[in-house]
Amino acid sequence: MKRDTLKLLPPFASAGGDMARGADATREKLLAAAHELLVERGGGHVSVNDICGHAGANVAMVKYCFANKDGLFQALIDRITSGFIRDIECLDALALAAPEKLKRHVVGIVKNYVRYPYINRLINLQLLSADPDGVQHLANNFALPLRAWYGRLLKEGVARGEFRVIDPTLLFFTVLGMAEFYFTAQPLMRGAFARGKLSQSAIKRFIQHTTDMLLHGVLVPPPQRARARKSQ
Amino acid sequence: MKRDTLKLLPPFASAGGDMARGADATREKLLAAAHELLVERGGGHVSVNDICGHAGANVAMVKYCFANKDGLFQALIDRITSGFIRDIECLDALALAAPEKLKRHVVGIVKNYVRYPYINRLINLQLLSADPDGVQHLANNFALPLRAWYGRLLKEGVARGEFRVIDPTLLFFTVLGMAEFYFTAQPLMRGAFARGKLSQSAIKRFIQHTTDMLLHGVLVPPPQRARARKSQ
Repeated sequence: MKRDTLKLLPPFASAGGDMARGADATREKLLAAAHELLVERGGGHVSVNDICGHAGANVAMVKYCFANKDGLFQALIDRITSGFIRDIECLDALALAAPEKLKRHVVGIVKNYVRYPYINRLINLQLLSADPDGVQHLANNFALPLRAWYGRLLKEGVARGEFRVIDPTLLFFTVLGMAEFYFTAQPLMRGAFARGKLSQSAIKRFIQHTTDMLLHGVLVPPPQRARARKSQ
Repeated sequence: MKRDTLKLLPPFASAGGDMARGADATREKLLAAAHELLVERGGGHVSVNDICGHAGANVAMVKYCFANKDGLFQALIDRITSGFIRDIECLDALALAAPEKLKRHVVGIVKNYVRYPYINRLINLQLLSADPDGVQHLANNFALPLRAWYGRLLKEGVARGEFRVIDPTLLFFTVLGMAEFYFTAQPLMRGAFARGKLSQSAIKRFIQHTTDMLLHGVLVPPPQRARARKSQ
């Protein structure tokens, strides 16, 4: 992977730039290096030495910037999941109906998994670790705001007779599960169904399938929807 | 976890029995011990020494029965996923319409995740490992037969005007993703949404939600379905 592809990845855009200086610049370089190595290795093992070698940074800087490797990975998860939350804030700024918002949200989630194919593995490792602080951090910064957004969206859709009554917590698991497993299970995909790397057209079909399944799953079937609208 | 709870788990029913003898009996005891320790530790680290200590078996028996720890875990995955495949064969033996079969299948998948909460982690580790044989084995024994079953079920439902036209490979990822992520992400659930262990009533609500979402996702909306039936 060429270094300049990073310029396509907004959360790390400043990594190669001249804006950040000193420890901040090193912090960004370390995050960008970890990102690149995780992409290259499909989420496999990446050591502190690998990251520092790739970033051209002294190993001591990991301790200085993040306390340890777990702290570095935590910062990487934070950077990516805060992008998920920013995406829903941007969606809220648009004057869109709830079904269209939900659809665009799912497209965004899938595109984030394409961009950061290792994020599931990092999150799963964090979930499995014995560190309650890490899990609580992920809960506060990602799960709770996203669940709250689903709650508002569902309420809006139900009020307009468009959505069935659905538990926002369960929708949280459904949306993320539908989107993440396709990427987590890519080795199985390649072993069982399709050789070679995930193509752009395969991702397009997956997005179409997933948004169709989810919207059919959430929407009130058409005749009831028409009746609900008339009675308003 | 008491030893005798294993009797509730069909794949390991013979572990405590008198039927199996010698190496076969040890093999079963090691699988049952690995299962129990993985359940106890929520899929966390379990060593060969732990397993042998729990099974009351000599460490050399792991080498003899499974070559190594990976082989033991592979055998455990096989045992569980072959149960998934047996479940769909049993469903096929019943005279049920495609939507009812799909619904019962999802209930079965979720119940298997409840029974073997560590299976995702074992499978994910295998998917992430550099071992193409393990992935191919999982593909041949689990993914391909399950995808073939979705293919037949979808064809049957589409022919009867009940199901939308859906790619069976993508349905494979959707069903498993919807079912597995809820269990994989339980630490997040506890950190963000609900304290304490997963209750029976929470699992019941999750099953209801998941089967509702999936059937609404797959079924042709009612008015079109009625038209399709009339034109048959």
